[in-house]
Amino acid sequence: MITVLPVEGMPEVHPGDEIADLVAGRVALEDGDVVVVTQKIVSKAEGRLEKVADDAERLRLIERESVRVLRRRDELVISETPHGFVCANAGVDLSNVDDGVAALLPVDADRSARHIRDALKARTGRSVGVVVSDTFGRPWRRGLVDVALGCAGVAAIVDLRGTADTRGRTLQATEVAIADEVASAAELVMGKDLGVPVAVVRGVDRSWLRESSIREEVVRPHGEDLFR
Amino acid sequence: MITVLPVEGMPEVHPGDEIADLVAGRVALEDGDVVVVTQKIVSKAEGRLEKVADDAERLRLIERESVRVLRRRDELVISETPHGFVCANAGVDLSNVDDGVAALLPVDADRSARHIRDALKARTGRSVGVVVSDTFGRPWRRGLVDVALGCAGVAAIVDLRGTADTRGRTLQATEVAIADEVASAAELVMGKDLGVPVAVVRGVDRSWLRESSIREEVVRPHGEDLFR
Repeated sequence: MITVLPVEGMPEVHPGDEIADLVAGRVALEDGDVVVVTQKIVSKAEGRLEKVADDAERLRLIERESVRVLRRRDELVISETPHGFVCANAGVDLSNVDDGVAALLPVDADRSARHIRDALKARTGRSVGVVVSDTFGRPWRRGLVDVALGCAGVAAIVDLRGTADTRGRTLQATEVAIADEVASAAELVMGKDLGVPVAVVRGVDRSWLRESSIREEVVRPHGEDLFR
Repeated sequence: MITVLPVEGMPEVHPGDEIADLVAGRVALEDGDVVVVTQKIVSKAEGRLEKVADDAERLRLIERESVRVLRRRDELVISETPHGFVCANAGVDLSNVDDGVAALLPVDADRSARHIRDALKARTGRSVGVVVSDTFGRPWRRGLVDVALGCAGVAAIVDLRGTADTRGRTLQATEVAIADEVASAAELVMGKDLGVPVAVVRGVDRSWLRESSIREEVVRPHGEDLFR
């Protein structure tokens, strides 16, 4: 059984805040929990904020944060970020920040996750996994889902390739993007407008708790990508 | 809080089996639960099985189940199905079925979900949502995640567009693909090789429990799709 617990009462996050301090007092963590933190408060804590006076400036910022634009339609830009993420507006986000300020993606969300994980360990003594999540659209399917931008102490991918299916037959491609599914599960108790930027996913398979990296395991190298 | 419960001890499913009968006796459902059922057992129950003698026949079957091939590499075909899904091998799947037999996608997975929902209501008296899930790859990101092929009694998309963010500012695009996130959450207790084809997601927001359809709400019309 897996339980997904919202962390209630998180305050507004400001540059320099230590997210682990804000989380540690609000939830009783257990070893093996996976703490999911939205990119928005990670970006705020890390000071990844920029003034944007108008839409032209916002667009310049999106282009600066992009290495390549894949698609454009009206206000929407689908581009590739320096991290290798393909998302809307290079992750430049105006919601839930002060007027005239945009939040940018963390420079290295795996590192952000490791930092939060180490800080939670130091404060609570608990060894947890951490996922930094963000809300992405998908081609071909409407609606947004939360995915992992970064992770620490929990597998980005669990490789079931080669393990036998229930018929004893060897499975083909069954590399499951665990960190992305954990991010999506956490989103179910967050909700964009609820102001719940942190959730705890309890009960994941212990074998998934290992060092990992979204950038190294999930971001598809151009060479193997059929859609870049 | 959300809990995700695996339904243990499900037997092998055969054409003509009533999935609701197999589930009802194995879990104490509550009103508002969302029952997630993998496409594989839905396809078996509905007899969506075809003999495939060899790889050439498998490939012919994939082409028959596709309306358009988007990409090809080696064994892998990424194609669009008649339902509008874009996935590997048109959903034709050889794992967890008898040798020489392939499972095809349900003809109408929303209808499959409605059928299971109505049958569970008749057998248990409980009003639940149902999601039929399948495991899809994504462009740009490695690893597979479970998504919803069909749903009944639970929203495919929850539209937070226009609701205020925590700063009282109106949010832009925040249509959350709830049914997909529920499918991903359920996958965390299934695991491809565990033989757990059904899970219960308990505690979702009551406002999400409504009639819905993946085909109508999630499948992107070609006209609005930037990647087709």
